[in-house]
Amino acid sequence: MVIVMQASASAEDLQAVISLVESSGFHAHINDGVERKVVAVLGEVNIDKVELVEHFEVLPGVEKVNLISAPFKLSSRQYHPEDFIVDAGDLAIGSKRIVVAAGPCSVESEEQIMQAARAVRAAGARMLRGGAFKPRSSPHSFQGLGEAGLVMLAEAGRETGLPVITEVMDAHDLDMVCRYAQFLQIGARNMQNYTLLRAAGQTMRPVLLKRGPGCRIKELLMAAEYILCEGNDRVVLCERGITTFEDAARNTTDINAIPILKELSHLPVFLDPSHSTGERRWVTPVAKAAIAAGADGLIVEVHPNPQVARSDGKQSLHPSGFEQFMREVRAVAEAVGRTV
Amino acid sequence: MVIVMQASASAEDLQAVISLVESSGFHAHINDGVERKVVAVLGEVNIDKVELVEHFEVLPGVEKVNLISAPFKLSSRQYHPEDFIVDAGDLAIGSKRIVVAAGPCSVESEEQIMQAARAVRAAGARMLRGGAFKPRSSPHSFQGLGEAGLVMLAEAGRETGLPVITEVMDAHDLDMVCRYAQFLQIGARNMQNYTLLRAAGQTMRPVLLKRGPGCRIKELLMAAEYILCEGNDRVVLCERGITTFEDAARNTTDINAIPILKELSHLPVFLDPSHSTGERRWVTPVAKAAIAAGADGLIVEVHPNPQVARSDGKQSLHPSGFEQFMREVRAVAEAVGRTV
Amino acid sequence: MVIVMQASASAEDLQAVISLVESSGFHAHINDGVERKVVAVLGEVNIDKVELVEHFEVLPGVEKVNLISAPFKLSSRQYHPEDFIVDAGDLAIGSKRIVVAAGPCSVESEEQIMQAARAVRAAGARMLRGGAFKPRSSPHSFQGLGEAGLVMLAEAGRETGLPVITEVMDAHDLDMVCRYAQFLQIGARNMQNYTLLRAAGQTMRPVLLKRGPGCRIKELLMAAEYILCEGNDRVVLCERGITTFEDAARNTTDINAIPILKELSHLPVFLDPSHSTGERRWVTPVAKAAIAAGADGLIVEVHPNPQVARSDGKQSLHPSGFEQFMREVRAVAEAVGRTV
Amino acid sequence: MVIVMQASASAEDLQAVISLVESSGFHAHINDGVERKVVAVLGEVNIDKVELVEHFEVLPGVEKVNLISAPFKLSSRQYHPEDFIVDAGDLAIGSKRIVVAAGPCSVESEEQIMQAARAVRAAGARMLRGGAFKPRSSPHSFQGLGEAGLVMLAEAGRETGLPVITEVMDAHDLDMVCRYAQFLQIGARNMQNYTLLRAAGQTMRPVLLKRGPGCRIKELLMAAEYILCEGNDRVVLCERGITTFEDAARNTTDINAIPILKELSHLPVFLDPSHSTGERRWVTPVAKAAIAAGADGLIVEVHPNPQVARSDGKQSLHPSGFEQFMREVRAVAEAVGRTV
Repeated sequence: MVIVMQASASAEDLQAVISLVESSGFHAHINDGVERKVVAVLGEVNIDKVELVEHFEVLPGVEKVNLISAPFKLSSRQYHPEDFIVDAGDLAIGSKRIVVAAGPCSVESEEQIMQAARAVRAAGARMLRGGAFKPRSSPHSFQGLGEAGLVMLAEAGRETGLPVITEVMDAHDLDMVCRYAQFLQIGARNMQNYTLLRAAGQTMRPVLLKRGPGCRIKELLMAAEYILCEGNDRVVLCERGITTFEDAARNTTDINAIPILKELSHLPVFLDPSHSTGERRWVTPVAKAAIAAGADGLIVEVHPNPQVARSDGKQSLHPSGFEQFMREVRAVAEAVGRTV
Repeated sequence: MVIVMQASASAEDLQAVISLVESSGFHAHINDGVERKVVAVLGEVNIDKVELVEHFEVLPGVEKVNLISAPFKLSSRQYHPEDFIVDAGDLAIGSKRIVVAAGPCSVESEEQIMQAARAVRAAGARMLRGGAFKPRSSPHSFQGLGEAGLVMLAEAGRETGLPVITEVMDAHDLDMVCRYAQFLQIGARNMQNYTLLRAAGQTMRPVLLKRGPGCRIKELLMAAEYILCEGNDRVVLCERGITTFEDAARNTTDINAIPILKELSHLPVFLDPSHSTGERRWVTPVAKAAIAAGADGLIVEVHPNPQVARSDGKQSLHPSGFEQFMREVRAVAEAVGRTV
Repeated sequence: MVIVMQASASAEDLQAVISLVESSGFHAHINDGVERKVVAVLGEVNIDKVELVEHFEVLPGVEKVNLISAPFKLSSRQYHPEDFIVDAGDLAIGSKRIVVAAGPCSVESEEQIMQAARAVRAAGARMLRGGAFKPRSSPHSFQGLGEAGLVMLAEAGRETGLPVITEVMDAHDLDMVCRYAQFLQIGARNMQNYTLLRAAGQTMRPVLLKRGPGCRIKELLMAAEYILCEGNDRVVLCERGITTFEDAARNTTDINAIPILKELSHLPVFLDPSHSTGERRWVTPVAKAAIAAGADGLIVEVHPNPQVARSDGKQSLHPSGFEQFMREVRAVAEAVGRTV
Repeated sequence: MVIVMQASASAEDLQAVISLVESSGFHAHINDGVERKVVAVLGEVNIDKVELVEHFEVLPGVEKVNLISAPFKLSSRQYHPEDFIVDAGDLAIGSKRIVVAAGPCSVESEEQIMQAARAVRAAGARMLRGGAFKPRSSPHSFQGLGEAGLVMLAEAGRETGLPVITEVMDAHDLDMVCRYAQFLQIGARNMQNYTLLRAAGQTMRPVLLKRGPGCRIKELLMAAEYILCEGNDRVVLCERGITTFEDAARNTTDINAIPILKELSHLPVFLDPSHSTGERRWVTPVAKAAIAAGADGLIVEVHPNPQVARSDGKQSLHPSGFEQFMREVRAVAEAVGRTV
């Protein structure tokens, strides 16, 4: 249930609504919208709220009360009708200007991450990605450099002036990761690791939340809900391909998810064309498709020397390929009224 | 196996190759390429061709012999390295100029199809679509007007100067359909109706072949192979969404399929964003995505009055929506170096 | 909508109901049930039938009127509450006695089909399968022996006393196929070939209808509806595996489909464990699973010499493997109160 | 790579092999098989081991050296050819006697779990399940009673003499959970939570590992590998349904997975028919199917009063339904040479 306040409602009106929400056994979350405020009424979903509607509708300053049937509330456009812009340093994600985050799958060495950072910066990326903790299907695969990798990543970010984003796999690594990275990434395998989601919410850092490859769009929004419930509204949703019967590519890019997420939610939406295709040659056309469909940004793998990458080399762009990628993405962005 | 001839090979050289192919128990298909000719050697796939390679390699005029491991041969880029342009009247599908086919799901009345034809023509469509035979999941649903519908469709095409495309569901309707339509469509449910594929091949009419929603990319190419084997090379492949676990949209648009099909095959590739999303609001962003990803055309449902459509109303654009669709698609097309 | 008559309703009562159904613009199908008759009221699905309910409810002899929301009507248990038994010669499919149909994927030679027929008969199969028209993904693969294969199949059936089942791919082959085979099979690729479904309905021969690998359970029931609408009620539904992201097996056997189909429909249900697994070693455990879950029969590939089979050798049982299969299936059948 | 020792190999032979493995930069895991010992050679998968084969083959006591191409090693039958039996108190999981774990989805109250425990014990269950930490898609749903729930569960287990199994969602809850539960469950959403897998491995408690609904069979085996790598070999694999396009049931039970997992791995395999179907009426037929296909056990939801269950009521059996379930499962178990 969301309670939409009149544009003219006073602070006292709002307070009265909040008080009734809480005395009725619910939690109130306030969306402090530009035009009008919206109060989300949260609690265990099975409780019948229909009869409460009329109690709220008659309060002073209330314009209307909407029951939301969707199980996601705080991530819903009904709660937050305007597009939401995730501010992160100089970046305004979700604004007219598209943000490209780029860098290697894994941080492998000081030299590798520094080369990658310089290359992606030169080509126009505005965020540096690089993994220090790698969730690998097999325990016998390279697992990342850990804190040493974070140190190298932070240094490469500092030198190039790019904010850094890195994956966190465990709630108990959050303090450490937050010392090095401006932006947190929660990977596809952890999309429903609720302990991690809550803890990431508590850091108040911006979070890029990747869709699990076997998860529905509404499950992604419910996962985002776990972060938002902690009071952290800086969440960016990221499509990265789903598992289907089609085996010509590593995953199936769910391009429909872009306009659907933009319709259901106010949160910015990214695509990761590297994972969603799994093949360098298809990264650029699919990235352009995402921008044409309305995505707010891209996160893409670039490696100074993909042939020797310790993970995901097949889908990583060369620096020269990334320059071409940026040129082509920029042209499509302009065609849809945006910049890069 | 394909035999690539030298650019300087003579007609006699080619004839000698063909003779040896056929005396070895195979069929030869010739791709009369701009730079050089390629001979596809076809026969039952289980026959071992490896030892034949050396017999062909030593013939005069032969540049090289490639074994093709893929089960599709004539639809493969190895057989036909250049992009293929399907000529159909004034249209050159697969060229720099993108082709949009538009019109209602079903032909419902003279007035309806004429209104639709004028509207889509005015907005820039270059082909008129409309179904007279409707493959419906339920036998209790509207099944189309049959030949009466074809008459109306042909008349609307004539008046607006648009070539028409319509679905054929049965090999024994082909003669009738060919009297009214310039372009044949084989629907998703019939993608593996081999009798129909062969018969459509024999008509020598251009064929739009839609991917079955549960079929892999390589199965689509093998279905195209059935048409090509009959000597009809004017085939357009069409992605129209696949069935996956995601239920937010009617189907999942497999956007990866666009660059993958363009890489594996020389045939032009269309998207049907109406079926691949199932929802009017998502048709335009997904159509733009397809063009950004490299599609050669679009086939889209437009109805003068979608609320009363007898089929697919939910996913049909209004005429005004289609104008907006064309404007947005055109902008993206120009960004990728094409026109509409 | 179905109209359930009282047990005591007279022939005149029934006739009056039918007359009102037809004068209202619908078709009536009568289920002549053991205890009571049920009338299905069929017509284009979009017509609102709610207001008709009260007109029918007050007629003499009517017990109740049920609106059926499912798009399948004649294949629904609401229309036909009791299990339906498909009589075919000596076989009563859907009865307590489970029926196993077995034989090679393709008829390859007189000797091969005769050996196969004798072997499966000796081990307890009660129907002989064998393909003469093979729907192959690639036009370059073996396509079956055609009518010559049907002759061999019929002869093998005659000699062993087994009724034969064979796939028909095209409506225009039906007359020929019916001269040789007692039981028709419609394959997975043709599940939505509506011309073929209607024509098979008109033959009045029993039909085994295989589920398309990308089709939902309710789509299978709607495909069956096409056959039933022609007045042919002898339809057997067959699960044969669906396409999913799991690639360890050729398909994913949808075992849930067995109890779901038995609940939604009165029609008998078979499993084809050869196609649903694609691997000889998994055929027997999955066949046993189907019987345990309530399947009424199995159709399984057996080849006298699978290594040299021209199609599907990998998933075909050896004759000795089939004997073991039958022993194991029989034990499970008895555990669920049935025989083989 | 696995090194199979001769039956007659001495302890010194084995030690020499281990020394060479470790001096070559790998880890050695020893399967102390009944007939012969097998040494698994583990390390980062990308390292080429082919040339090492000949070094090991010539060592005294070595019978043969097999390269394992599969990315799972310790969970592979090549490493452990015999079936493995997970001993847990009185239970021998993977033996001829099938184990049924039953109980409510969530522990809701002392009375509820005690009633459930008595009912499932009386009907023949040998393990009590009940969740105290519930991974719910929505943060607004009931999340479980936490440690209070564990206390109630442990008490119910004590009184009925049933060992208890409960889900652990976070590595940092493991100590607490291990104080109350004999058996750990890792849920489908956490199948690739590698921190949790490793930590569960370190507890040395038996672990039931559920397959993620979007994960392939080989990914399940690689997840098991994370536990096994810690030296904990008591892992039970559990199929619980996968996400596919079929929406008639909550999930699609992948029955093929039972014989495939039994072939690829030595670990015992369970099915959870409650989650794999999502509907009480289909639980028993699908459970019987799993036993017929070779499953070693079942984990099933039973609630004293499913209508008021705080989670999963729709798929929970009533106590009387569970008695019937056990009778039917027992009959099928006996038909495949096992007991319950």
